[in-house]
Amino acid sequence: MHAPSAFTLERRDLIGIEGLSAAEILGLLDLAEEFVDLNRQIEKKRTTLRGRTQINLFFEASTRTQASFEIAGKRLGADVMNMSVGTSSVKKGETLIDTAMTLNAMHPDILVVRHHASGAVALLARKVDCCVVNAGDGAHEHPTQALLDALTIRRNKGRIQGLTVAICGDVLHSRVARSNMLLLSTLGARVRVVAPSSLLPAGIEQYGVEVHRSMESGLADADIVMMLRLQRERMAGSFIPSVKEYFHYFGLDEAKLHHARPDALVMHPGPMNRGVEIDSAVADGPRSLIREQVEMGVAVRMAVLDALARKLPNA
Amino acid sequence: MHAPSAFTLERRDLIGIEGLSAAEILGLLDLAEEFVDLNRQIEKKRTTLRGRTQINLFFEASTRTQASFEIAGKRLGADVMNMSVGTSSVKKGETLIDTAMTLNAMHPDILVVRHHASGAVALLARKVDCCVVNAGDGAHEHPTQALLDALTIRRNKGRIQGLTVAICGDVLHSRVARSNMLLLSTLGARVRVVAPSSLLPAGIEQYGVEVHRSMESGLADADIVMMLRLQRERMAGSFIPSVKEYFHYFGLDEAKLHHARPDALVMHPGPMNRGVEIDSAVADGPRSLIREQVEMGVAVRMAVLDALARKLPNA
Amino acid sequence: MHAPSAFTLERRDLIGIEGLSAAEILGLLDLAEEFVDLNRQIEKKRTTLRGRTQINLFFEASTRTQASFEIAGKRLGADVMNMSVGTSSVKKGETLIDTAMTLNAMHPDILVVRHHASGAVALLARKVDCCVVNAGDGAHEHPTQALLDALTIRRNKGRIQGLTVAICGDVLHSRVARSNMLLLSTLGARVRVVAPSSLLPAGIEQYGVEVHRSMESGLADADIVMMLRLQRERMAGSFIPSVKEYFHYFGLDEAKLHHARPDALVMHPGPMNRGVEIDSAVADGPRSLIREQVEMGVAVRMAVLDALARKLPNA
Repeated sequence: MHAPSAFTLERRDLIGIEGLSAAEILGLLDLAEEFVDLNRQIEKKRTTLRGRTQINLFFEASTRTQASFEIAGKRLGADVMNMSVGTSSVKKGETLIDTAMTLNAMHPDILVVRHHASGAVALLARKVDCCVVNAGDGAHEHPTQALLDALTIRRNKGRIQGLTVAICGDVLHSRVARSNMLLLSTLGARVRVVAPSSLLPAGIEQYGVEVHRSMESGLADADIVMMLRLQRERMAGSFIPSVKEYFHYFGLDEAKLHHARPDALVMHPGPMNRGVEIDSAVADGPRSLIREQVEMGVAVRMAVLDALARKLPNA
Repeated sequence: MHAPSAFTLERRDLIGIEGLSAAEILGLLDLAEEFVDLNRQIEKKRTTLRGRTQINLFFEASTRTQASFEIAGKRLGADVMNMSVGTSSVKKGETLIDTAMTLNAMHPDILVVRHHASGAVALLARKVDCCVVNAGDGAHEHPTQALLDALTIRRNKGRIQGLTVAICGDVLHSRVARSNMLLLSTLGARVRVVAPSSLLPAGIEQYGVEVHRSMESGLADADIVMMLRLQRERMAGSFIPSVKEYFHYFGLDEAKLHHARPDALVMHPGPMNRGVEIDSAVADGPRSLIREQVEMGVAVRMAVLDALARKLPNA
Repeated sequence: MHAPSAFTLERRDLIGIEGLSAAEILGLLDLAEEFVDLNRQIEKKRTTLRGRTQINLFFEASTRTQASFEIAGKRLGADVMNMSVGTSSVKKGETLIDTAMTLNAMHPDILVVRHHASGAVALLARKVDCCVVNAGDGAHEHPTQALLDALTIRRNKGRIQGLTVAICGDVLHSRVARSNMLLLSTLGARVRVVAPSSLLPAGIEQYGVEVHRSMESGLADADIVMMLRLQRERMAGSFIPSVKEYFHYFGLDEAKLHHARPDALVMHPGPMNRGVEIDSAVADGPRSLIREQVEMGVAVRMAVLDALARKLPNA
């Protein structure tokens, strides 16, 4: 099942799942399996990225994703630097480019970028010479999240093809949902989204997913129930559901989970709003994969950094 | 005087001085002596923790303690990450556990934790798989501070047993006082606390210490005068002394220091409120050990990390 | 043109350009050339500073300068720590010294310090045992900026002696201007400052520079046009020019650049106020050296750290 450890992505950047082939996705997952094993050792250090500079450039705060990329880079031997750029000091798109070009002149090898605007990371990647990894841009993509979710599913179900995966909740604001729809479809899963109409983006059908507006029908026969964080901080000016009402209709509790298959497993990208989109009894219960997702996150990011770095000259 | 460098703590975590035997404390102090010497070299790097991940998880800001642990870990070869978690983003005890479990899933080897609530670090340690070092929890314990204080005393007085140590000031809010009372008693020192009644915790007698309410009687024949920081930021809603009056009665100046032994030495855990609990003439004077305490801090933290890491499998 | 890589500064600290000889400056520039080449390699790591501790102590926020020093130190193999000290927590000069002495007790080898007060870095350097590098102190000096500017000029013009360099804009608040005037004069360039009277410091003539109050005369026959950032944040209570008026008279656009030599090149220390002191067409145009300045910054800082570290015992 393990790939030879010389898998290479035939691209310089990882901006999204869009455009990745099934072979590329599977190559990354296979490589990540090796790093799962490594991370469970005491001596976790590799020298793959020795002498390389990785900069985590976060325009949007994220303790857990930044930590995951930092650990991934350091375990591969890179010099890792964190730069958190407050949105207050960034008013114009132009400044994003100035920041990127300034860093680029310092000859980093890898930029890991999170930005609150969809498309910002792709724009930045066109301006710089180094590898760019998208750590989340607006409501667009979060490719390493979809990869870690796929790795978690495959390790627990043995496959992805043919599974029924229900992605539930705030699909409208979710780059996690978008990257997962793309990846899971590419690998042959049957993907459903389950949400109230107000939390579904226009044109959701283009992703080839089934759309459900109730948890009962949406979870029927599901193998995987993937809950999304309700992103109330992005809802200014639009419809904001009452938390109590939202939990009643769309929060995952034991009762709603009964609609899924008896061996269905539960996922959440974190951080969780307990009592809003998920009940603690489910989040901490025996069918939850939530902690394992975090573990897979480090392994998948090591695989991405490793596969991109092999494209660097001299590597 | 130097221990063989293979001293091992027969425990996974260091939550407090409470429960440590005299032999364990002395083993750590002897090991720390080696690191005092190492830190005075130019080439200060060891490989003991190579390939290990140390995360400094600080729920309460502390520039100096965090820097001390960061230097200690890096000099031992660990990959060290700092995570400062603002209290604003942590509203519930549950979130502490979610944060801890998330980090735990990334397979760190050592978590160094500071938290504003007494008992929080012990709670967290029960949930994770890695070594946990308490870097200060509420008014409970700050074990590495007590160890560095003991090392400083022993290097200057040649022993701890039989010395008279006066711990003076805001005992009520002080985890430093508590850890020091426990450690110094265990090693056979005669411990006094000197404070106004309003700054003494109920039941202070249980620690087997003498209680004094004046500096004159409390400092009489003292070998060590250990001043505490007046923690006005923790006094909301309770009695807040006037700084001028406090300094008059309990601030350490040359006049009050005359009550102690002629060779008495002065300590303070920092950061100092000059002119509040200590006069600059004493703080910067020839009997002050305050800078040496900081130096010993790095050495003691290296000893703790080293002694705990030897318990890790494969180490 | 490359120096032997064993150049040593016969001083412990780099506080300013003032007092550096032409030979010392040229030695640093030659050494930096080696690091320019290294930084363009994939494997950029040296072991020169292995086992050494570098602390970046910034009392004033600066993403780009701090990143540049961090990359420089890490590429030389040092353990690098960042400490950002908010001005809010530093009220008195005494606290600067307490902070410095506390860090000093942890045995760092190099302190890189930025402070908002002129002279603060020199004061700090007298109190500590390690190497100190000034990363900018008030309106006093920013020596590594002047060195990187000189390296950029020399690489593009082949020399510095005999060139005419026009330093334009907010000279009053600029440590960059001051360090550049000193360095360029020492290396035999003809230096002009171009600014409105309100943005010129009293006694500017002591630097042996020509003073111009119009861009037309100031740029005539200039080989290098060095623009300064308009530091409106330092102008509280004094004359604040209207941005539109300032740009009209002193902002560099294509029209004003025509006054300079046809092969004149344009520099700016960053971050730029586009449309205030410089027009985007010039900043991003073919005669701009602004990105190259950033690249030279990392190389020059590596040279400074390397040259100072050779003075450390055992090195």
